[in-house]
Amino acid sequence: MGQETCIFCKIVNGEIPSATIYEDEFCRVILDIAPMAKGHAILLVKKHYPDLFAIDPDTASGVLCAAAKVGEAMKKALSCDGINLLQNNGPAAGQTVFHLHFHLIPRWNGDGLSLGGPQGSYAEGEAAKIAEQIRSCME
Amino acid sequence: MGQETCIFCKIVNGEIPSATIYEDEFCRVILDIAPMAKGHAILLVKKHYPDLFAIDPDTASGVLCAAAKVGEAMKKALSCDGINLLQNNGPAAGQTVFHLHFHLIPRWNGDGLSLGGPQGSYAEGEAAKIAEQIRSCME
Repeated sequence: MGQETCIFCKIVNGEIPSATIYEDEFCRVILDIAPMAKGHAILLVKKHYPDLFAIDPDTASGVLCAAAKVGEAMKKALSCDGINLLQNNGPAAGQTVFHLHFHLIPRWNGDGLSLGGPQGSYAEGEAAKIAEQIRSCME
Repeated sequence: MGQETCIFCKIVNGEIPSATIYEDEFCRVILDIAPMAKGHAILLVKKHYPDLFAIDPDTASGVLCAAAKVGEAMKKALSCDGINLLQNNGPAAGQTVFHLHFHLIPRWNGDGLSLGGPQGSYAEGEAAKIAEQIRSCME
């Protein structure tokens, strides 16, 4: 999807109105209209990156510091007990809009929301082999 | 927990061995020993921050760019279809080690893993009110 038809580009530039919590040169943070919990926010990166993999160093610093700042404010405003930061890359990971964004999900003790799956384990030597496979794909 | 007894500080400084995928001045990325999926990595920030909220701008840039780099390598090495980046703050959000870290979870189409909850909605005017509450907690 090109930038001219991207719904998050339109929200970032104000063409589509949103419940904006925070804005700076790197991002606009809004409330998700289909929240996993009341106060669930999404941080929209102003640059149109499709996913995390092309992020530049200045944007990376700006958006992660903005997420921390907004998360702190969410804790105070919502009296929540915790915050999940979640960022999905690819439809298999649950990404539905292909413009880089981060979810900030407020959590309360016993809220019943599950953001993790069941945890497995590795056979002897298996983890070392997989680690080596991944390492070998970095130049 | 002080730094001297923090298990992730001990992994970061090599006192406890780990299946390390990547290391730079900001972070060490290792395989999670209790993976949600084979290849599930965790990025351990070298500085001992308990959670996201105290992160500094240089570390923010370094670790998010490292996550992108490792994520790209995971896609190649594991032939996965997507990646979730997940960072938990507080026990209510599933944080179990109080040293800032990010999960990189490889995803495959139809893998059955769910990292989102059911999505709700807002009543008329409710989102605007919550957004204002959060905004008012940022200085």
